[in-house]
Amino acid sequence: VALTEFEIIRRYFARAQLAFARDGVVLGPGDDCALLALPPGEELAISIDTLNVGVHFPKDADPFLLAQRCLLVNLSDLAAMGAEPVGFTLALSLPTVDENWISQFSNGLAKVAQSYQCSLLGGDTTKGALSITIQVHGRVPARQSLRRKGARVGDRIYVSGTLGDAAAALCWMQNRSPFRGKALDDDSAEFFRNAFYRPQVSIEAGISLRRLASAALDISDGLASDLGHILEAGDLSPGSQTQNKASGRIGAVLDVHKLPLSVMFLRYVPPARQLALALAGGDDYGLCVTVAPALEAQAVSRMQALGIEFTCVGQIEKAPGIRMRDAQGVTAPLTFRGYQHFGVKDG
Amino acid sequence: VALTEFEIIRRYFARAQLAFARDGVVLGPGDDCALLALPPGEELAISIDTLNVGVHFPKDADPFLLAQRCLLVNLSDLAAMGAEPVGFTLALSLPTVDENWISQFSNGLAKVAQSYQCSLLGGDTTKGALSITIQVHGRVPARQSLRRKGARVGDRIYVSGTLGDAAAALCWMQNRSPFRGKALDDDSAEFFRNAFYRPQVSIEAGISLRRLASAALDISDGLASDLGHILEAGDLSPGSQTQNKASGRIGAVLDVHKLPLSVMFLRYVPPARQLALALAGGDDYGLCVTVAPALEAQAVSRMQALGIEFTCVGQIEKAPGIRMRDAQGVTAPLTFRGYQHFGVKDG
Repeated sequence: VALTEFEIIRRYFARAQLAFARDGVVLGPGDDCALLALPPGEELAISIDTLNVGVHFPKDADPFLLAQRCLLVNLSDLAAMGAEPVGFTLALSLPTVDENWISQFSNGLAKVAQSYQCSLLGGDTTKGALSITIQVHGRVPARQSLRRKGARVGDRIYVSGTLGDAAAALCWMQNRSPFRGKALDDDSAEFFRNAFYRPQVSIEAGISLRRLASAALDISDGLASDLGHILEAGDLSPGSQTQNKASGRIGAVLDVHKLPLSVMFLRYVPPARQLALALAGGDDYGLCVTVAPALEAQAVSRMQALGIEFTCVGQIEKAPGIRMRDAQGVTAPLTFRGYQHFGVKDG
Repeated sequence: VALTEFEIIRRYFARAQLAFARDGVVLGPGDDCALLALPPGEELAISIDTLNVGVHFPKDADPFLLAQRCLLVNLSDLAAMGAEPVGFTLALSLPTVDENWISQFSNGLAKVAQSYQCSLLGGDTTKGALSITIQVHGRVPARQSLRRKGARVGDRIYVSGTLGDAAAALCWMQNRSPFRGKALDDDSAEFFRNAFYRPQVSIEAGISLRRLASAALDISDGLASDLGHILEAGDLSPGSQTQNKASGRIGAVLDVHKLPLSVMFLRYVPPARQLALALAGGDDYGLCVTVAPALEAQAVSRMQALGIEFTCVGQIEKAPGIRMRDAQGVTAPLTFRGYQHFGVKDG
């Protein structure tokens, strides 16, 4: 006999490993709403993301790993705001009730939830094509959140972690070039599997960059595309088109020879493909931040103290657009953009 | 050329009719997170719900109406907590980019968003089977929220609005008995269409019942099933199984001859089907609340002042289970339950 929606929730989601007590959570799952409290002087940061089968992950994705990715990509948005996780909601659509799948998915969620102290607050379990929507809720002191808007001419552009690993991992998982027909050794396979399913999200990095970064976001669509958001910051807010015209006119130069690339990336991705994957490949979920020159040393030393790779990859300039600059100082306009769900955007 | 994800968001979602300024919204769409502030002494109430094509609505559902239903069923959860809407997030999966569909959907959202002062805070637009997940965010003074837990023996059971109209509407839209082959006149068609797509959610009702209702929820799965949640309240919270054994042991009697049924319902649904649709049919989204006898008159007069139909349909009793009682005082155990997504739960 198939489990009812209530039984699924009771057994696999409303359990102490997932829906645990957490400061600020007044009421967890089981009522019409969950209830959150905020300490005085703090704001609640929220972000929602959907991962769909066949679009964001393959049908046979390991549910334990998939769950980790689902929650981590959302936590990445909190990190990019300088916020600290409190809890998350889960809207899960399942085509059938596969208890083994659900159990492993729940375990993957619990692993990340516990390590980030992000408790399950509530959710909805429905029948439908496999789809996972998670909303995260975090807290950040008022006026200290990291925004996309705020970069100024002369600011240095930094990224955390390495670039392109997740995009390379996707090529591998889809048996595409440069991995087509290649059998990876266990270490390589684990590296790329983790690069895709378990992005290294550092909440501490975001918190440490409060009051230091002039602008910040997480790299989800590829550095080229996401840096573009920083340059056009605020464009999506209503009424901001005029307000942000000024920041929309700034540009950037990227020192392509300084892009942080992993050993595994360099081992498998041929030089001719490296730039495309590192700049236009998405899913890395490191941070991209801009820092005023006067605060640069402090930001670098804080990241160093956290053991986080933090690399200066360029600078904000007055001239609009993004330019690539090589070790010889030769510049060329950037011609590829990040991943887009629908259609292709001109660069 | 297909629109990009960014263009869809810019044109149809990050517009002033949807993402409008609202007290408590520090930062709206366009950044990694939205930011909310809470006045001191208030709590944030959140609820997430998914509607999937082919499960919760037909593929050819009118997008203008569908959008209204999506937001209203979520607002209903805020009403049931006694919370006031602030804003909502939207995770929208679309199989293709149909601008006409998206535009109408956006208009439907805007209609409800404006009438309930619930601003779009952010979202995610992805490719996938048509699926709409909305999370609502509301505020409620600390310790004044209406919970499912709290009903006591002797409390009266009240419902707002009428019962069964949405379930009847579903029969009509699916051309099932008692509507099979029947052509409805325009008034009837509009009544049933609205019953399903535009449930009458009253935020004021929830607010007015603060400090008066001992327990509350919205009727989404059918009165029988949802009243069961009040009787077993808190069962889904971790560690609550022992804690709530006491409330899990209470029961209720429903005066089936007092169930509020609409004129249209009585006109189309034959007597033999009425009880099943009114008690086990879902989607009505009225409130079901329990009120201590001492507060009953006050609750009734407040609902009357709001012009809300508010009907006593029974009473909480010591004996577990739900019993039906007819006008002659004859009781029988309730034998049908509300809608369940997976499998069938025994009564």
